[in-house]
Amino acid sequence: MRPRGERKIVAMAAGAFDLLEAKTAVGVIRYGRDRVVAVVDHTAAGKTAAEVVGVGDGIPVVVDVAAALRCAPDANTLLLGTAPRGGALPESWRSQIITAMGAGLDVMSGLHYFLADDPQLGPAARSAGVEIWDVRRPPQTHRVADTRAQALPATVILTVGSDCNVGKMSTSLELEAEARRRGRKAAFVPTGQTGIIIAGWGVAIDEVISDFTAGAAEDLVMEAARDCAHPGDMIVVEGQGSLVHPGYSGVTLSLIHGSAPDALILCHQATRREIRRYSVPIPSLRHLIRLHEDITAPVKPARVLGVALNTFGLDGAAAEEAVDRAAQETGLPATDPVRFGVATLMDAVDRFIQDTPPKGAQ
Amino acid sequence: MRPRGERKIVAMAAGAFDLLEAKTAVGVIRYGRDRVVAVVDHTAAGKTAAEVVGVGDGIPVVVDVAAALRCAPDANTLLLGTAPRGGALPESWRSQIITAMGAGLDVMSGLHYFLADDPQLGPAARSAGVEIWDVRRPPQTHRVADTRAQALPATVILTVGSDCNVGKMSTSLELEAEARRRGRKAAFVPTGQTGIIIAGWGVAIDEVISDFTAGAAEDLVMEAARDCAHPGDMIVVEGQGSLVHPGYSGVTLSLIHGSAPDALILCHQATRREIRRYSVPIPSLRHLIRLHEDITAPVKPARVLGVALNTFGLDGAAAEEAVDRAAQETGLPATDPVRFGVATLMDAVDRFIQDTPPKGAQ
Repeated sequence: MRPRGERKIVAMAAGAFDLLEAKTAVGVIRYGRDRVVAVVDHTAAGKTAAEVVGVGDGIPVVVDVAAALRCAPDANTLLLGTAPRGGALPESWRSQIITAMGAGLDVMSGLHYFLADDPQLGPAARSAGVEIWDVRRPPQTHRVADTRAQALPATVILTVGSDCNVGKMSTSLELEAEARRRGRKAAFVPTGQTGIIIAGWGVAIDEVISDFTAGAAEDLVMEAARDCAHPGDMIVVEGQGSLVHPGYSGVTLSLIHGSAPDALILCHQATRREIRRYSVPIPSLRHLIRLHEDITAPVKPARVLGVALNTFGLDGAAAEEAVDRAAQETGLPATDPVRFGVATLMDAVDRFIQDTPPKGAQ
Repeated sequence: MRPRGERKIVAMAAGAFDLLEAKTAVGVIRYGRDRVVAVVDHTAAGKTAAEVVGVGDGIPVVVDVAAALRCAPDANTLLLGTAPRGGALPESWRSQIITAMGAGLDVMSGLHYFLADDPQLGPAARSAGVEIWDVRRPPQTHRVADTRAQALPATVILTVGSDCNVGKMSTSLELEAEARRRGRKAAFVPTGQTGIIIAGWGVAIDEVISDFTAGAAEDLVMEAARDCAHPGDMIVVEGQGSLVHPGYSGVTLSLIHGSAPDALILCHQATRREIRRYSVPIPSLRHLIRLHEDITAPVKPARVLGVALNTFGLDGAAAEEAVDRAAQETGLPATDPVRFGVATLMDAVDRFIQDTPPKGAQ
């Protein structure tokens, strides 16, 4: 695999290059250190990424991998950028992956299905002399969580959410960047495929056997704590799923109890009323805050410090109004991190760090 | 594997044949349809099972597998009855397993480590012509939960708990038996190794990849609903872990949201103050009830109907007092299912079923 920063990425998002489905591709375009040189989606071919998803000026969307290689001959990495539900490999992608490998591209995949284990793709990669990085492959070590992350010198912040795909990763990355701008030592802890691809390390926590999921979260925080080892340092853990998600709530709770945050940021998409793909209504922000604080309290108490509101689909005025409403409803600072920045959330974190006695001293 | 009912079991519990560590062996002795003919534990050799754990009159505890075969030459199945933390295979067991296989015994194992995949034990079983049943091996199919179990005609009851190993399986089995005695069609849904061995089917839910844990729970309930298909039928799901367990809470929540119970029975051990092996205090029963009802409410509301109190270690008077206190504190029926039976809990379930309109009609 080319080192991070030197990859020139063709992002595969066939038929699904939009903000809802192509979370990985969009995340890498927005936050990655590597350049995305083309996006593959036959349904949007001819446009630029920016025209389709609002980021990626000048990145062409093309019909297939062959076309991507024609318009970006220096491409060296193929990114499987969507994660279809269940994570299987769409059969139509197979020949395009082989084309890419034949042209010397490494492959980064966020699918549940591990390409390196595929009887055709594994050998094809070896004979082409390229690498497959299945970023969701779980760690070999299995550990039950042990409350080791509960008393670290650094402050641990976890993003939680009303649903999947509401902005937990973006909020985490924006907080990390803002903390650094303010001179704090800060680390981003990736727990999902996009975060892992962006940061170059981490564990797809939802791929871990459930007995060991909290343990894997704990290990990740302990790893980040090696660098962020002092009071005042900040570790931001990327949240997953939602406590009220019928399919993924267990992943969320493992992450909450395993990463042992000192404080939470609640993420929500302003226009979303139901869990996506389910007819389960999303509770109010106040209700969600209470639920999160109640479920952390018996193991390790964590307060919600602020609300990160994804205002996707709203115009500027409506977005501001939605943010104001969220702040009023909750009595907490609120913002859309992507649209309005995270200064107000980071202010809340700064105050929290200042007002909280060092954990060792407790 | 010999069919259920025809197994004559040597239960391995080396060094750990007690009520805390030998949950599987004790559960199979108490609830299994198969006869346990010997228990292996060199630290208790010479006693009977009943002398050590209070059940198993006349079952000898012996020093090793060879001794078990001498005193029970008709043994045909070896049960690895403890699940050491992390689930690895104690090296000292290896030669005893091979001795057992050499004598024609099948092996049922509840370990995380799959014996059939072991480079020595797998081939040894094949050459001895015996079978290995790794009961924790997760299903091949991976499904995200889909709220399919939310509107079944039958009433779904889930046992939940303040901690691991407080009586969720026993309570579930006692409820199933009592429902049948009262003429109800009832099914027990096994979600852990002991329940699986006793019932002959099920999934060790904590062994499933966390993204699919709720889905696996849902599948199990749907499977039980094929037999228990009518209003008035009862499906009792064996709970796992605890919402306030730092390591396993995610397993618990996946099971709660995936199995979509209509009502809960809260299980607790009367003398336990902290999560076992952690210095995490267990909240009060009232607090636990609120926590469980709050976390079910957004996805599918479920009320706690009663308290199953494990009074292990208390004398008769103290046990009765503890049960009374639990009933007073919660305002709910309480009992120790093993000591005093589950009639009072089943009364509550009967009332609930009677008072609840059929789910299809809602």
